[in-house]
This record gives sequence, C-alpha cells and structure tokens, in this order.
Amino acid sequence: MNERLKKQKEFLLEVDKMKQIYRQTHIAGGSRQENDAEHSWHLALMAFLLSEHANQAVDVLKVMKMVLIHDLVEVDAGDTYAYDEKGNATKRQREEKAADRIFGILPEDQRREIRSLWEEFEAYETPESQFAHVLDNFQPLSLNDYNEGVDWSRHQVHKHQILKRNAKTPQGSTAIWECMEEIIEKNIEKGNIIDD
Amino acid sequence: MNERLKKQKEFLLEVDKMKQIYRQTHIAGGSRQENDAEHSWHLALMAFLLSEHANQAVDVLKVMKMVLIHDLVEVDAGDTYAYDEKGNATKRQREEKAADRIFGILPEDQRREIRSLWEEFEAYETPESQFAHVLDNFQPLSLNDYNEGVDWSRHQVHKHQILKRNAKTPQGSTAIWECMEEIIEKNIEKGNIIDD
Repeated sequence: MNERLKKQKEFLLEVDKMKQIYRQTHIAGGSRQENDAEHSWHLALMAFLLSEHANQAVDVLKVMKMVLIHDLVEVDAGDTYAYDEKGNATKRQREEKAADRIFGILPEDQRREIRSLWEEFEAYETPESQFAHVLDNFQPLSLNDYNEGVDWSRHQVHKHQILKRNAKTPQGSTAIWECMEEIIEKNIEKGNIIDD
Repeated sequence: MNERLKKQKEFLLEVDKMKQIYRQTHIAGGSRQENDAEHSWHLALMAFLLSEHANQAVDVLKVMKMVLIHDLVEVDAGDTYAYDEKGNATKRQREEKAADRIFGILPEDQRREIRSLWEEFEAYETPESQFAHVLDNFQPLSLNDYNEGVDWSRHQVHKHQILKRNAKTPQGSTAIWECMEEIIEKNIEKGNIIDD
C-alpha cells in the first residue's frame, strides 16, 4: 500500500477514539453526554453555516479544519471541563505530549499542518482561531440551554465563570455573543446559572 | 435576536438528532455502533487528509461541506443499511421528504446551498461527489477491517455486494481503491466476506 496512505489510515483509526471521549455537555434531550467526535462535527457544521456572523472575514476551510482537529489531543489527555481549575492547571502540558504522539503518526507535512492549526487555535489570536472559539463556546451553551441548564446546575456554575471563559467571544462575533448573553440572562432568571 | 441566527440555531439543534441515528458499522474496538454525527466528523477529517489521493483535483471545502451534511436527511428517514434491498427501494422518496422539512428550517439561501450540495452528492457525478463517496465507502470498510469483519459476518455480506456498491470508487481514487481491494481480499481469506 501507498506509504502515505498507510500512515494516514493508521492516524484515522487512532483518532476514532474521539468517539469515546465524553464531555460534560449533554446531547439535545439530555439522554447522555456528548463525545468529542460529535462535538467536532457540530462545530464544523456551525463553521459552515455561521461564518457570516464573524466580526472579521474568516477563511471557512481553515476554521473547519481547526474545529475538526481542535480536540484530537484529548485522545490521550482526556476532556478537561471548562470550569475545572485543577485540571486546567496541567492541561497544556498533558495536551502537548498528546499532540507529539498523535500528530506524529501522520506524514511529516501533515503533522506540521495539524500541529500548526492546533497551536493557532490554542493561541486564540487570529480571526479564524477567535471564531473557532466562539463556536466552541456557543455550541455547549446552546445545548445546555435546550436541556434546561442541567449541566450548569449540576456543576453550580456562576455567571462570572461563563463571562471569564467568554472574555474574547464578543471580539470574534458580536451577533453570536448577543445571542449568548440572552441565553445566559434567561438561565440566571431560571436559577440554572448562579448570579454573582 | 438576529432573525437569520435564530433560524440557524434552530436548525443546528434539530440536526443534533444525528447523534442518535445509529449505523450498522461499529466504532473501532467494536464496543457499540457508530452514529451519523461521528461518521460525518470522520469523513470531514478524511476529506482534509486524503484529498491528495483523489484522481481529479477536488475543492476540499466543498467535499467537506458535502460530507458534513450528506446524512442529515436521516434525522427523519433513518439510516438505510448499504445492503438492505427493501430499504433502499424506498430510500430516495423518504429522504427527499426529509430534505424538504429539515433544510427548510434554514434561511432560504442556505436551504438552497445545502439542498444543492446534497443533490450533487446523491447524483454521484462531479469530482467532489465521487470523492465524497470514496470516503463514505472507505471509512466503514476500514473500521470493519479493524474490527475483524464483524459487520460483514453478521450480515453475511458477499464480495459482489461490496463491488457493486463500489463500482465508481476506482474513478474517484485509484490509490484508495487499491487499499480497499487489499482489505476486501484479506477479509475473504479470513472468511469474513463471502466469495462469489
């Protein structure tokens, strides 16, 4: 078999494990938690449909690639909940080690491309990275709102935690941030999010 | 809220149901069946990594959009197994009705774009559609091979059924078809696929 295809196939089977990395967010209806593969598909579809709401013009293909690969490191490092302070303190180190191993399965040029996309996502600076983060925050918020705020209630999430996590969201998309603010306020009124 | 964003958000929550449409294929390791959201994520990642193997140059963004949306109609129509003859006889009609309802939730321009991408995928004629189908056939074959052919054995799949389904695969990608042929021959030898 073609040497490049062999490596690519091995990589594609290795990252199948994304289907078994469960996040804190529940799927619509709340019957179970969502996994990383499902989450990444949802974000890629959002990149397709919502890019008109980005404050700066974005390269949609790049945003799509970024969201498709942004959680691959969790195959080794696991999912770290947004509001888990301890977990977040060691997250970067665990994920870098994972990136070395997992991306290293690919042919060298593709390893470099994916590593660079992932570093760009993590750095949170370019229009594509900022918009990818908008989607990464909007998607669970939207599901959680649909599910009557069950994840916020369970973890006793405070408004200031959500605002801190979304500090750069208005920079990425004013329109989506306004929609998110509505959702946050509604869930404070309902008692699902704790007001500060 | 922004009227367009409201419709887009409703659509994105509606198609969350893809996470509960289970296919016949099992995830790597075989612990459970794969759902449509996971499958679509996997294909989009393959579109990113494997486009160099397409026989004709393809617009990667278009292939990616196509695979992200190609199974959305299954939210209403359900998954029809590749080798289910009865199911496949009524598939088109069920899926068209589903496309009308589901894509109709979107703003009109996006409804048209997604409908057109889905029709193009189904027509199996353009380089992007042919390559998207290569991925749609290669992914379950590759998982099934990894899982020791459990899905082929369970459904008593014959070689001619696989070849019929893949009649146009060599047109889409010679390199990937060669890899698939190796997998098919290996699984005939193992007794997982029935030789004709």
